[in-house]
Amino acid sequence: MSSWRVEEDALESIVIGAGILGTGGGGNPYVGKLRARKLLRAGHEIEVIALEDVPDEWRLCTAGGMGAPTIAVEKLPRGSETTDAVRALEEHVGHRIDAILPAEIGGGNSIEPMIIAATLGIPMVDADGMGRAFPTLPMITYFIYGVSPFPCALADEKGNQIVYPRGVDDHWLERLTRSSAVQMGGFVGCAVAYMSGADAKRTAIGGTLSWARALGDRVRRARAARDEDVLDGVLEAAGGRVLFEGKVVDVERRSTDGFARGQLVLDGFGGDAGAQLTISFQNEYLVAWRDGEVVATVPDLICMVNREDGEPITVERLRYGYRVAILGVPCSELLRTPEALDVVGPPAFGYDLPYEPMEVVR
Amino acid sequence: MSSWRVEEDALESIVIGAGILGTGGGGNPYVGKLRARKLLRAGHEIEVIALEDVPDEWRLCTAGGMGAPTIAVEKLPRGSETTDAVRALEEHVGHRIDAILPAEIGGGNSIEPMIIAATLGIPMVDADGMGRAFPTLPMITYFIYGVSPFPCALADEKGNQIVYPRGVDDHWLERLTRSSAVQMGGFVGCAVAYMSGADAKRTAIGGTLSWARALGDRVRRARAARDEDVLDGVLEAAGGRVLFEGKVVDVERRSTDGFARGQLVLDGFGGDAGAQLTISFQNEYLVAWRDGEVVATVPDLICMVNREDGEPITVERLRYGYRVAILGVPCSELLRTPEALDVVGPPAFGYDLPYEPMEVVR
Repeated sequence: MSSWRVEEDALESIVIGAGILGTGGGGNPYVGKLRARKLLRAGHEIEVIALEDVPDEWRLCTAGGMGAPTIAVEKLPRGSETTDAVRALEEHVGHRIDAILPAEIGGGNSIEPMIIAATLGIPMVDADGMGRAFPTLPMITYFIYGVSPFPCALADEKGNQIVYPRGVDDHWLERLTRSSAVQMGGFVGCAVAYMSGADAKRTAIGGTLSWARALGDRVRRARAARDEDVLDGVLEAAGGRVLFEGKVVDVERRSTDGFARGQLVLDGFGGDAGAQLTISFQNEYLVAWRDGEVVATVPDLICMVNREDGEPITVERLRYGYRVAILGVPCSELLRTPEALDVVGPPAFGYDLPYEPMEVVR
Repeated sequence: MSSWRVEEDALESIVIGAGILGTGGGGNPYVGKLRARKLLRAGHEIEVIALEDVPDEWRLCTAGGMGAPTIAVEKLPRGSETTDAVRALEEHVGHRIDAILPAEIGGGNSIEPMIIAATLGIPMVDADGMGRAFPTLPMITYFIYGVSPFPCALADEKGNQIVYPRGVDDHWLERLTRSSAVQMGGFVGCAVAYMSGADAKRTAIGGTLSWARALGDRVRRARAARDEDVLDGVLEAAGGRVLFEGKVVDVERRSTDGFARGQLVLDGFGGDAGAQLTISFQNEYLVAWRDGEVVATVPDLICMVNREDGEPITVERLRYGYRVAILGVPCSELLRTPEALDVVGPPAFGYDLPYEPMEVVR
């Protein structure tokens, strides 16, 4: 089994890359990065194994933060929420977890699996269940492709734990966990998708941590070079194309039902001068309209980076005046099947729009 | 160990007696009575053992319905909610429950333990944790006197189950379970207060099922006699005194946060002609004012019965025109200690009133 270790340098890159691929969501990674770095400096190790190397009989689960990223900025995590959730899940199933499988590649939820891996002394898998970030549990490929959403465990920073041993389906689990997360303070640790290594290989999107790392490496190299346009590096590593370049001139954002929802407007500059781009979001950027015409929708990735240095701009950091580039990146094929589009296509978010792959919309 | 069996005749009496002692809450017992009767007719047995006869090493838990009684009337239970909650608790602790210990003597929650006992083939204990009914979990004597509120299990009629393995305290458990109960449809089965027989003997109020049965017997005898005033029989069996006789002239009732809250006004008749009684409630009747003067408060029992036939009137049945008698019944001494009054006295419900035992207020 080949594996690699996340060192401090890789951590810096992953934070940037996962922030970009997180399409605005997944929570701010800054505090998570500091926590992970502290664990590395204390001698803990973050071992990463490739998806194809995971033994079929291993027991895996996914874990991360659940809630509104806007809240996680103001209510700093204690740090034990996600590990406590994993331990509550282990206690419930009566088995140790062999490795952590990330739920999404995005912001804080790319860092949490590293922290759990370092804390519990188990490896994490170079894969996730979105190839981006999404706001709700049913949008994870593990569930779309048949892994049971039960049992699930939540833990907060106060010492409360909740286990969901069985239930109707993943939509009910989402509803019940979301309302509990709100009661617990708006941001909690969640462990779910208890599955075998064989199931992981069937349902996960592989290589996404390496992808985030490579993307972050490229951004950092462009920054260091100074005379290189950072966007070229981003596009080279992430794929896709620049949808728009402009200045944030309006942000309407509210925290409702445990989500950060709203929309933002950009006034174009450069080649986009005179045009406006509107983006709606629910934790993540969902749909982008250029002067009223759809240019990209979920599940394709709508990523926002600071135009100058490629720094990802997540929804909780959005504010007037940012000069940004909006990138469109084609999503994983696992998100483009009919069964996936039922769950992650525009109608699933309340938009009466067909999904057209961004390569086609152009 | 001496025990007795609840037969159909006793069931009829218990429903009336527990309805009166439930002080307006505990949910409507009618559907529960039909379910219990059906089990009896199918050959199931409801064995009742005295609190003092419970072996110290037995494992007990309490179980019943949680939610607003107004909702339970419109959304009929499937019938499996409370047994499913007990099974989820058993699964979590890894042990069978030896006997069911009622949480409250009131309405539907006096019947649920019988249904669980009949279904699971285990006895129920002739005792409860209130000697009346109260709206929230922390108000149960088991928790007031040190039994852990964790673990707790909820189950709904759809197949969702939630386990609370550990948490901050009983107030957090109340908050988390109540919000989940609302999400699950407003009325769920709840199993909690996992304890030993020794703990039950220390913290439970004994003999309350027998009390409810004797009270119901007395009401039914008075009804059969016709020339006997039913109130005399009620007072003889329940103790206490008549606080007021009057007609319901106003009911303000709303369902908020999973509770039925509001107040009602009675215009007096007979010896109370010309006076008004106002009663506030939160699932249960909490405080009674006669022309602005407090005449009884929690934790003493404020019971409402139909003036003619002694039928208990619960909050979800309240409406204009009922001609009723309001009874005051002194509560158990276990509810009158300083630690209990902190949790069940008037200030705990938001009333800036001292608790004066109703024998003193007179």
